[in-house]
Amino acid sequence: MPLWNIYHPEGTFEDNASKEALSKDITAIYHEGKAALPKFYVIVNFIKLPQNSTYIGGIPNTGTPFIRLKIDHIAVTLPNQDEVYNSMTDRIDEALKPHIADKGYDWEFHVDETERRLWRVQGFNPPPHGSESEKLWRDLNKAVPWEEAK
Amino acid sequence: MPLWNIYHPEGTFEDNASKEALSKDITAIYHEGKAALPKFYVIVNFIKLPQNSTYIGGIPNTGTPFIRLKIDHIAVTLPNQDEVYNSMTDRIDEALKPHIADKGYDWEFHVDETERRLWRVQGFNPPPHGSESEKLWRDLNKAVPWEEAK
Amino acid sequence: MPLWNIYHPEGTFEDNASKEALSKDITAIYHEGKAALPKFYVIVNFIKLPQNSTYIGGIPNTGTPFIRLKIDHIAVTLPNQDEVYNSMTDRIDEALKPHIADKGYDWEFHVDETERRLWRVQGFNPPPHGSESEKLWRDLNKAVPWEEAK
Repeated sequence: MPLWNIYHPEGTFEDNASKEALSKDITAIYHEGKAALPKFYVIVNFIKLPQNSTYIGGIPNTGTPFIRLKIDHIAVTLPNQDEVYNSMTDRIDEALKPHIADKGYDWEFHVDETERRLWRVQGFNPPPHGSESEKLWRDLNKAVPWEEAK
Repeated sequence: MPLWNIYHPEGTFEDNASKEALSKDITAIYHEGKAALPKFYVIVNFIKLPQNSTYIGGIPNTGTPFIRLKIDHIAVTLPNQDEVYNSMTDRIDEALKPHIADKGYDWEFHVDETERRLWRVQGFNPPPHGSESEKLWRDLNKAVPWEEAK
Repeated sequence: MPLWNIYHPEGTFEDNASKEALSKDITAIYHEGKAALPKFYVIVNFIKLPQNSTYIGGIPNTGTPFIRLKIDHIAVTLPNQDEVYNSMTDRIDEALKPHIADKGYDWEFHVDETERRLWRVQGFNPPPHGSESEKLWRDLNKAVPWEEAK
C-alpha cells in the first residue's frame, strides 16, 4: 500500500545495505504496531538522480545531499485529526533519522492519500483493513485468493 | 490525461516492442469504449530501475520481477461507486495480463485522481469531457485551439 | 512545497544552464507575488528518460520532444474557483514558455494538491502559510526551529 519513491542524488544510498536498512525501518512503520499491515504492501523505490538533476529554489543540489521522499498511502486513510497526522509524520521522521538526518543529509517528505478502491495487488482487491483475510495475507506475506464478505 | 509511471526492474520491458504493445493496450482502455478520450491523452513512462533499487517489505526485488504501476487520472473523475471502481480496475488488469501476469511477473497498481482544472496540454485547457471539441481533438489526435462555451 | 517532477527525453535539458534557468522561473511562481513562499520549498527533479521510454497514445516519443511535468502542491491549497485555477495554470505556462514552448517541444502538466499536515521539512512541520515564522524561513531561506502558536 504505501509506495515510497525516494529521490536521492548520486553518492547517497550507493551500497545495497544502506537501502535495505532504510526499507526495513520503513516497513516497520506499517507492519508493526497498530496498523499491522502485511510486509509486502510496503514498496520502496530508490530513484537515484545524477548530479545537477535536482534544484532547490533554483539552485542545483551540489552541497549537502538532499533526499526527497514522496509517499503514497493507499490501504488506510488517516482520520482527519491534527494529532493523528502528527503522530504519523513523527513515526516517519523517526524511521528516517538514522539513515538520513544522522548522516547529515537534508530531507523533505510528503504523503498523499489515494483511493483504496482503485488499488490492486496481483489482480486482487486487497481484503478490508483489519479483516481476517488481511491477517492471512499478513501471515503468509503474500496475496492469495480470499472471499469477499457478502 | 492518464499518466502511467511504470517502475520496472532491469531485465523487463527491455525491447521496444514489449513497451509499445503494453502502451497500446493501456491506450485502448481510455480511447475505446465509453470514455472515448483522445489517444494522445495517454502518456506511459517506463522507468527502468537498476537491480537493488526496489524493496518489497524490506527485501530487495531480486526474485520474480515486480512491476509497480502508478496511475494518475485527470480528465475524468469516476463516480464514487464500488461497481464503477471495480470495473475500472478490472479493465486495467485485463490490459496488463498479457504483458505482466502472463509473463510471470508480480505487479501492483493504484490510481490517483487529480483536479481536472489544474491540467493543461500544449498550453490549452482541454475541452470538457464529452464535448464536440473533445471529439475534434480525438479525431485529429492533437490539441488545437477551441472556443470555450460561454 | 511544490515538488516538480519533470520527465524529459534524452536530448533535452542536457546542459545544466537550461535546467537551472527553468528551475529559477519555476521558483519565481511561488516565491514572488502573493504567495511569497520560501525559495527552498521549491524542488525540481529533472528525470531524464532514454529514448523509447515514453509512449503517447501508444506511439513512442521519437519525434518532437515531449516534456511531461507532474507537480505536487502541498503548502497551499487553492480555493476551489475556476478563476484561481486558471490563474495558476496561466502562471505555470508563462514560466514554461521560454524553456519548453519556445524551443518547439510538446508538453503537458498537471497539479495534484496534497495534505499539508502530512508534510515535513528537515523534521519540522512548516509554519502556517502567511505567518511570521514562514516569513523568517523565507528570509533565511532555510528551515529553523519555530514555536507553534498555542
